Amino acid sequence: MTAITLEQAAQILREHDNYLVLMHKSPDGDAVGSAYALCRALRSIGKKANPLCGDEIPESYFFITDGFEIQDFAPEYIISVDLATADLLSGTAKDYADRIDLCIDHHGSNTGYAKLSAVDGKSPSCAEIIKKLIDVMGIKADREIADAIFTGVCTDTGCFKYSSVRPETHRIAADLMDCGARSAMICRLMFDSKSPAKLDMERRVLDTLEYAAGGKIAFICISREIMERSGATQGDTEGVASIPRQIEGVRVGITMKEKENGEYRFSVRADDDTDASEICRKFGGGGHRAAAGCSIYADSPEKAKDLMIAVCIEAIGEDS
Amino acid sequence: MTAITLEQAAQILREHDNYLVLMHKSPDGDAVGSAYALCRALRSIGKKANPLCGDEIPESYFFITDGFEIQDFAPEYIISVDLATADLLSGTAKDYADRIDLCIDHHGSNTGYAKLSAVDGKSPSCAEIIKKLIDVMGIKADREIADAIFTGVCTDTGCFKYSSVRPETHRIAADLMDCGARSAMICRLMFDSKSPAKLDMERRVLDTLEYAAGGKIAFICISREIMERSGATQGDTEGVASIPRQIEGVRVGITMKEKENGEYRFSVRADDDTDASEICRKFGGGGHRAAAGCSIYADSPEKAKDLMIAVCIEAIGEDS
Repeated sequence: MTAITLEQAAQILREHDNYLVLMHKSPDGDAVGSAYALCRALRSIGKKANPLCGDEIPESYFFITDGFEIQDFAPEYIISVDLATADLLSGTAKDYADRIDLCIDHHGSNTGYAKLSAVDGKSPSCAEIIKKLIDVMGIKADREIADAIFTGVCTDTGCFKYSSVRPETHRIAADLMDCGARSAMICRLMFDSKSPAKLDMERRVLDTLEYAAGGKIAFICISREIMERSGATQGDTEGVASIPRQIEGVRVGITMKEKENGEYRFSVRADDDTDASEICRKFGGGGHRAAAGCSIYADSPEKAKDLMIAVCIEAIGEDS
Repeated sequence: MTAITLEQAAQILREHDNYLVLMHKSPDGDAVGSAYALCRALRSIGKKANPLCGDEIPESYFFITDGFEIQDFAPEYIISVDLATADLLSGTAKDYADRIDLCIDHHGSNTGYAKLSAVDGKSPSCAEIIKKLIDVMGIKADREIADAIFTGVCTDTGCFKYSSVRPETHRIAADLMDCGARSAMICRLMFDSKSPAKLDMERRVLDTLEYAAGGKIAFICISREIMERSGATQGDTEGVASIPRQIEGVRVGITMKEKENGEYRFSVRADDDTDASEICRKFGGGGHRAAAGCSIYADSPEKAKDLMIAVCIEAIGEDS
């Protein structure tokens, strides 16, 4: 792995062609926005470029993908965006896990799986890096590119709320609006709109809320039963992980998602004094200080929950 | 009433002294933020200035008001901020209703009650106008001023979500962060923070969700039992009325709140094609096209609900 600057990345992108841009499984707004924005930017300078995700793109991002035709070519240069580790690739995208040429990412925990890496762990979104990259390349964002980048910027910052937001994040949002980004439509779709199934899922998930450490830790569970009964999709679970940390007095918010074969997938959100990525690293996961994730394999949801809560209690330095 | 520019307003503020800055009743983030920012800015150039609100400032804004001492002087020049009409003054602030010298506001509906008015109906918040005014005056915002203005900017835009947001709104947010505004803390406090009792109330309210007209109407109920069991306060119910309208496909969202003596208080939210105020006028209420309210007196919650839903079905032109 060699770390490179955005100037070097820009030079490389100008030199090569026939790009494949990989997204992680369960793609979110930052993954979809970054990949489509980069592909559209590359196409605008005459290159061929396709995005690839092993999972289906959730319907809520169709405004980004609509009208974008897949081009016919043999991939020559493989790029990943918003991908902390190659393990997060799924389906057909997995085939490229060992031959990623360039990684553009904002995860400080990036494992360095690509030949070349342009990683800025301080950037609140990967989309913000893509914006800087296309600026360096002298590409002006059209409305489609601006919409895609704006989606990544706003979703990965909880609509400009997180502590990762910097003054330049707002300046980039302003520039994107100048390029035609439909800020209000995107924000409404991403944050103020939910399907009946999603709302029903959230209602059932709220029924699982438990507190630990005298209210400093809050825990919710998205069981497979809840997903089945509500009819919610995997995409619908986005944002749910922020619920427990919103409760006053809560320092660590835990969201446990029941997967198959004894796997329980955790999202951990922490306050400024607690390191969520350190908590998740204890279980082989990782992420950011404020938000991280990991999987625990256990015989029962209770065991997985107890293991996680014990580590969180230790992390905040409280007696249970 | 004479309309003046921000340059003229700046000149006037430099010339006078002993300012009183009035806020509307039930003050929100924009009123508190605008008034305190303006007072602090005036004090920074050696003027005396006090904010005045007839109602108490809610606790969530104490981070703006903390450490701000009221000065002892006889008010000579009366300013109002974020005040569409003098009727919205309450308590001791009412005494100044007829002698307001300068109004700084962003309501297109401003009634022109002041001698001089600097009104920009396109500005998403009054705080944004205050920021421009102190820029014109050559005053650099310190952290306290920046926090106060940022609060107004983010609360009146639903955290940068509304269609009123312009590129310059984000640029102003960036400038305020450069001046030390604690963006993440403020956003978290204003938007991502709820008490365990409020969350429990919302959970119970979601259990009451019903649809009518094939999903075009959604109904929730805040019963007295829910309020008692959750321990939520009346203030906690703020924002709940926006939940049913956020559901995809819903054209009219109804929130019914059980009061005493057979009174049921309704909040109605409607899509662009439906007039909520017309629905509520049928029951003696009123409001805006998108959001309105009324009371229905009935023997039972079911009867009140049925009366309202019947009118809503008629309003959207659907068979029940």
